[in-house]
Amino acid sequence: MSRTKATRIPESVSDSDRVAFDALLDDSSLGHFAFVAEGSAMLFPIAIARDSDTVLLHGSTGSRWLRSIATGIPVTLEVTAIDGLVVARSAFESSMRYRSAIAFGTCSIVSGDDKVRALEVITDHLIPGRAAEVRPHTTRELAATLVLRFTVEEFSIKHSSDWPEDQETDLAGDAWAGVVLAARGYSRELPAPDLRPGIAVPASVRALVAESDGGR
Amino acid sequence: MSRTKATRIPESVSDSDRVAFDALLDDSSLGHFAFVAEGSAMLFPIAIARDSDTVLLHGSTGSRWLRSIATGIPVTLEVTAIDGLVVARSAFESSMRYRSAIAFGTCSIVSGDDKVRALEVITDHLIPGRAAEVRPHTTRELAATLVLRFTVEEFSIKHSSDWPEDQETDLAGDAWAGVVLAARGYSRELPAPDLRPGIAVPASVRALVAESDGGR
Repeated sequence: MSRTKATRIPESVSDSDRVAFDALLDDSSLGHFAFVAEGSAMLFPIAIARDSDTVLLHGSTGSRWLRSIATGIPVTLEVTAIDGLVVARSAFESSMRYRSAIAFGTCSIVSGDDKVRALEVITDHLIPGRAAEVRPHTTRELAATLVLRFTVEEFSIKHSSDWPEDQETDLAGDAWAGVVLAARGYSRELPAPDLRPGIAVPASVRALVAESDGGR
Repeated sequence: MSRTKATRIPESVSDSDRVAFDALLDDSSLGHFAFVAEGSAMLFPIAIARDSDTVLLHGSTGSRWLRSIATGIPVTLEVTAIDGLVVARSAFESSMRYRSAIAFGTCSIVSGDDKVRALEVITDHLIPGRAAEVRPHTTRELAATLVLRFTVEEFSIKHSSDWPEDQETDLAGDAWAGVVLAARGYSRELPAPDLRPGIAVPASVRALVAESDGGR
């Protein structure tokens, strides 16, 4: 197909592309889904979590967007991580370090025991270890939640981890060049105003902040 | 129109929505454009910079995606900032602090003196002060660069800056609740391997890191 320069899966995608795609999904809490509605391109951001070679997403059963793509219409998922700015000696050669994937496929509704497990996968993707710290979902909560599984039919991934590549005349000049790394993760936690005294920050949240570049 | 719950501009969008939209654009280095191509929803990420009530984007004249939307076809822009995780006492009530806008409009090609100025706006949006630190674009560089201006016809913005809103029974329990703030900006700079000795980190890059949550 002409939509991507990629490679269909599972037949012909290189192992390294699949590893890079999975790593990007694992590093990302946010994805962007697009679809065609009444002739227009609609797109919306949503939390995503990889589950083997599929992608889970969830929201309210009242969500118009989720209900639209739950019907199994063709959808496009894009996930991008900005890893840094490439600061060259000229504006022209300046760019970004990034990883970006686009995937085409369809969504289906997750239900039953698989739904319960999928919600745990989503929770633990966003805050590793959190699912075990909180009570299980109630029946009412499960009924109010729509969980979808995106099955990838085709994807491509692009990435740049470049250093500046300046022209010879600029290399001889006085301009600085380098890379500015993007802050990652979370900077700090704030207790809720109604938190009861004596409840410590849980291990999941402590680890989330400690493992972030933004942590201090 | 039914695409957004919004409000057309400039007639009826509230001033506060416009201020919030502009602030989101100013805080964002990345936007996502979607359009319909051969019946599929295509989308791609790209650096954006607000210029008054329009949005600038740029890339190589060889970019297939940019050339597609340069024709003036209807395009959808989505910009989202994740400000933090809302960690509730249950997984169900957990969510995100975010700001997200969707805008419908069209792109047009920027040329001449306006193109030179637009590239400065883009450079200074990504790295404030950088345009004055580097040499001007050459004629050849300008010829190789496609600059587009996205004109907003309609937009809507959603945001959440909530605290957890737990159920009464959960409030009485032992689970922690709060917000984990997302790291913002840049963590540190790395000099290019071919940087000549004695060239100091420029003010623009120092400020970018110093003003980030990720700075240390």
